[in-house]
Order: sequence, then structure tokens, then C-alpha cells
Amino acid sequence: MKRVVGVDIGGTRIKAGLIDDAGSVIARVSLTVGADRGEEAVVARVAEIVRALAPGGAAAVGVAVAGVLDHASATVAESPNFPAWRDFALGRRLGERLGANVCLENDANAAIFGEALAGAGQGATHCVGLTLGTGVGGAIIIGGEIYRGERGMAGELGHLTVDPDGRPCNCGNHGCLERYAGAVGIVETMRAARPHDPEWQAAAADRDGAVAWLAERAAAGDATARDIFGGVGDALGLVLAGLLHVFDTRTFILCGGVSGAFEWFGPTLRQTLARRSFRSMQAGVTVVRGVLGDDAALVGASVLARRRMGG
Amino acid sequence: MKRVVGVDIGGTRIKAGLIDDAGSVIARVSLTVGADRGEEAVVARVAEIVRALAPGGAAAVGVAVAGVLDHASATVAESPNFPAWRDFALGRRLGERLGANVCLENDANAAIFGEALAGAGQGATHCVGLTLGTGVGGAIIIGGEIYRGERGMAGELGHLTVDPDGRPCNCGNHGCLERYAGAVGIVETMRAARPHDPEWQAAAADRDGAVAWLAERAAAGDATARDIFGGVGDALGLVLAGLLHVFDTRTFILCGGVSGAFEWFGPTLRQTLARRSFRSMQAGVTVVRGVLGDDAALVGASVLARRRMGG
Repeated sequence: MKRVVGVDIGGTRIKAGLIDDAGSVIARVSLTVGADRGEEAVVARVAEIVRALAPGGAAAVGVAVAGVLDHASATVAESPNFPAWRDFALGRRLGERLGANVCLENDANAAIFGEALAGAGQGATHCVGLTLGTGVGGAIIIGGEIYRGERGMAGELGHLTVDPDGRPCNCGNHGCLERYAGAVGIVETMRAARPHDPEWQAAAADRDGAVAWLAERAAAGDATARDIFGGVGDALGLVLAGLLHVFDTRTFILCGGVSGAFEWFGPTLRQTLARRSFRSMQAGVTVVRGVLGDDAALVGASVLARRRMGG
Repeated sequence: MKRVVGVDIGGTRIKAGLIDDAGSVIARVSLTVGADRGEEAVVARVAEIVRALAPGGAAAVGVAVAGVLDHASATVAESPNFPAWRDFALGRRLGERLGANVCLENDANAAIFGEALAGAGQGATHCVGLTLGTGVGGAIIIGGEIYRGERGMAGELGHLTVDPDGRPCNCGNHGCLERYAGAVGIVETMRAARPHDPEWQAAAADRDGAVAWLAERAAAGDATARDIFGGVGDALGLVLAGLLHVFDTRTFILCGGVSGAFEWFGPTLRQTLARRSFRSMQAGVTVVRGVLGDDAALVGASVLARRRMGG
């Protein structure tokens, strides 16, 4: 077996996995990024984690990281999680340390690619996916390849408009999908829904746990919680209807933390998608929740790395 | 020179052109479809027009037609302009009559492909385009190829939502782009803007001439006419901002009859596009009006036909 390692460099933790030929994670390591978030320190940390997983050496390493990348040179132009990085040749620097080929991928692209080919998509070569996290990211798979656009910035699907006069967004637009279906947006909806309820306000203040808390309330029959998820599903359904009209693709995958509440927003999502699109284009369309959980980005990065080496 | 003929089968007229290697139309013929709109009659009519243009025979023929096509078999599954056609093997039937290779393309795809490669796009290999006619169609060019989706229905860009609670559309959605930026939608806006003005109501009743009339009013300084075009530009700008986020493509092309009023809706379009998208993605983006006019679809079909024969 060719030893391939997938790495997911997040804002707080570096996760890595040793992946077999079938795309299964057979060993995992996770470390905090550490106090020194500089380029050299992070390269050293990632090298350490790869050596721990593949002491005899890895044939290839795939790295997922948030930010704007230059794929040809395996460089991170900029990353929201590491503001000090600037045109950081992460691929080359890590490759030199490890004596292995390293390829880089944007984390949303890597996660959806992993889910499409080795997860929920069951090998789908055409797929559009959304990562529902703090914000909302997206990725487009066409013919088994990640579609990157003319300059590598394609797939910013969280910034499609669901309400032209809606909440302002950092991108300059109003009413972007991520302002309603990302965790920050859902928390904002929670705060506004029960402004005088201290329990709700306290739950909303815990951003990492808020959506799971809200799902528990929905499960307990709380009508407000169910309404909020209905709104999330409606926003997602509008955007997926648009993406169906654009791409005529049958497989839509949702992953990221918020997708854990799929049970509660999924039904409205499907209704809105059906209501807002051509009936002839709906045949065979599936909207599925990712199955790889936190492993999605590292699995996707490993599949890219394996492919790059012709494996 | 290899003689290639492009044909555009419209609802009322069949237009064809003899196209040189550079994509220029060196001779044109146009005929009415005629009273018999059946499969055999239309094949005969198209064969007649091709023979008139290339009496010595055409090396290849490209045909643009509205509808759902199967490209592999050059079959028209269904066409809105020819409701009696059903799985009509137009490519094979025409090819047998002419002794030439015939390829088919959807009319919006053909028009935008023609504009991208031999018109306003100046050879752009990545491009997203809209055909602003009675309704609004769309096409996506990726890497010099028409993107067709998993089942050939991709690029229904006229059905992207600009107002979630807006005008109902035949597709089942509310607030589709084409209900605001297609001629039928603009006429509806005109009627509502001056309900008691007989001159406006008469102009709106002439659907084929209404948009040109409105552009004349805008040129004469009419504030209502200018506002209406502002609304058209705003709807288009919202959709193009979304498509920029999806595709990260620099070239947007607008063609079709309504694009003749680009002077009046273009400025608002550009403002809205800038306001609703990431600044970093806006660099180098151009939105241009098509330059091939009524020839766009037949030129695009001819480029496809030439390419298919390896020319």
C-alpha cells in the first residue's frame, strides 16, 4: 500500500490521517496549532504530525487549509486563520522537510471533494457542495475535478444572495446565504427570535454549541427552534435551486458543523428546492449530508495527493 | 477554405450563413419556417437553405435550435418552438440529405459560444453569458467548451432568483431574473409604471418593439424609462455578482434583443455587481454586449461544427 497522509490545518487544531487505498482513515493524530503561528513553526508542526503517522515516510501528503491558494506553486497567498502568512510556499517547504510530494487545497474544496469521491457522494464525479460552518463555503466538482475558476477563487457559494435587502455581509453584499445558514447567522436569528429569554440568549452566546442546542430544542418540540431551522432550510433551498439551474448536477452535499442539524432543516430545504426549480431538472437530484465528519477535508486532500502521484 | 454553414432555426425564421475560417459570415440566407412545421418539412427547408449557400456542398453544418437536445445522438428531445417534434433525429436526417456532418446546439449555448470565441469575448475560453430575449437564457463556457451539466440542461441562468417574493414564473419559482430582464418582464414593468398613460400602454402592447421604444424614451430623458432600465440593471447585477462568486470568471457577455438597451441598464448593472461581490474577485471583470447581433447563434453553431470536423 502506498502511504498517503491527509492533513487539515485549522485555525486551532492540525488534524492528520493515514489513508488507505480505499480512502479510509486507518490512523489519526491531532495537535493544537500552538502559540507560534508563524510559517516556520506550522511547517515544523505539520512535519512532526506526518512523521508520527508514517514513520517510514509518506509517498504523498495532501494539505487542506483555509485561504487563497496558488495551486501551481503550492503557495498560500493568504489565510484567514494565519493573518501573518503571505505568499507562503507551504507545499515546497513541507515537501523539503519530508522528502515527499505535497499538494495543497482550499479546505472547503478538499472537504467536498473528499465527500464526493470517498464519502456521501459515493464516487459522484459531478457535485456541488456547501460547508456549513461558522460561515458558509462551497465547492464545485465537475468531471471528477475541482472547478477553481480563472484565478482559483471559484465556489464562494456562501455569498449567493437569498434576500436582496437582507443582513449586511463582510463581502459587501446584503442577504448572503452565509448570513442565514452559517453558525454566526443562525446565532443572530436565535438572538432576535427570543430577545427577552435569558436561556436563549445564553445558548446563543456559546457560538460553538448554539446550533446543537437549538437542534435539541427542536427535538423537544420547540416551535421557535423549528421555525429557525425552517428558515435555514428555505435559504439553502433557494440557493440549491439556483445551483441546480446553473449546473444541472444531481448530487448536492452539505457538510460542516451546522449540517448536524440536517434532520431539522432538510425537509424545508427539499420543499423549497422543489418549489423553486424546473420539475424536469429535479429528477434524480439528491441532497445529502456528509458522512466523513471532521475527516472530510483531510480525506479529500489525501485523495488529491494520491491522484497527483498517479496512485 | 473549408465551407462551413451555420444555421439558426428560430420560431418564425430559419437563418443561415456561410462562415469563413475566421468566423466571419461571408454570405447569408433567411427564410420563413413556413406553414408546415413538421419534422420532415423543416429538414427539407434547412437542406434547401444550406444548398443555396454552399452549392458545391458544405464540409460541416452546425445547427442552433431552442430546446432540450441530446448531443450524442444529435436529437431534439423537445423544442418550445416546434411542439410537435419529439426525439427528432435532426442531425442524422439533415446529414443524410446533405452528405455532411451536422452538429446541433441549443440556441443560447450557440449564441454565447459564438460571442465568446468569435465575437465580443475576443476568444475568451472562460465566459458566462446571458441571452436577453423574450425570456432570459444563459450559457457557461469553461476551458473553451460549453458546459452542459450531467444531463445537458445546465445554464438556465434566467431562472436564478432576484426577488424571493417576486413575480411568479413558469418554472415554478417566484422572482426569476427573466421576469425582470426579459422582454416580457420589461413589458410588465412598463404596464405597471404608467397604468393610465395610453401611449405607454400601446407601446407595451407591441412586445417586439417595446424595449426599443423604452430606450428611446430613456434617451429623451424620461425618468420613468430610466428607472425601469435601472431595475433591469439591478436584477442583472445581482445575478452576475452571484455568477462571479460561483465561477470566478472574468468575461460576462450579454446578447439578445434587450441587450440593445445596454447603454441604459449597463451603468446600474455594473454598480450592483460591484456592490454585491468581493472586491478581490472584481479585478479584471468585464461585462460586454454581444457584437454579432442576430448572427451569434449561427456563428457559434458553425464554430462547433468546424471544431467537430477537426478544422
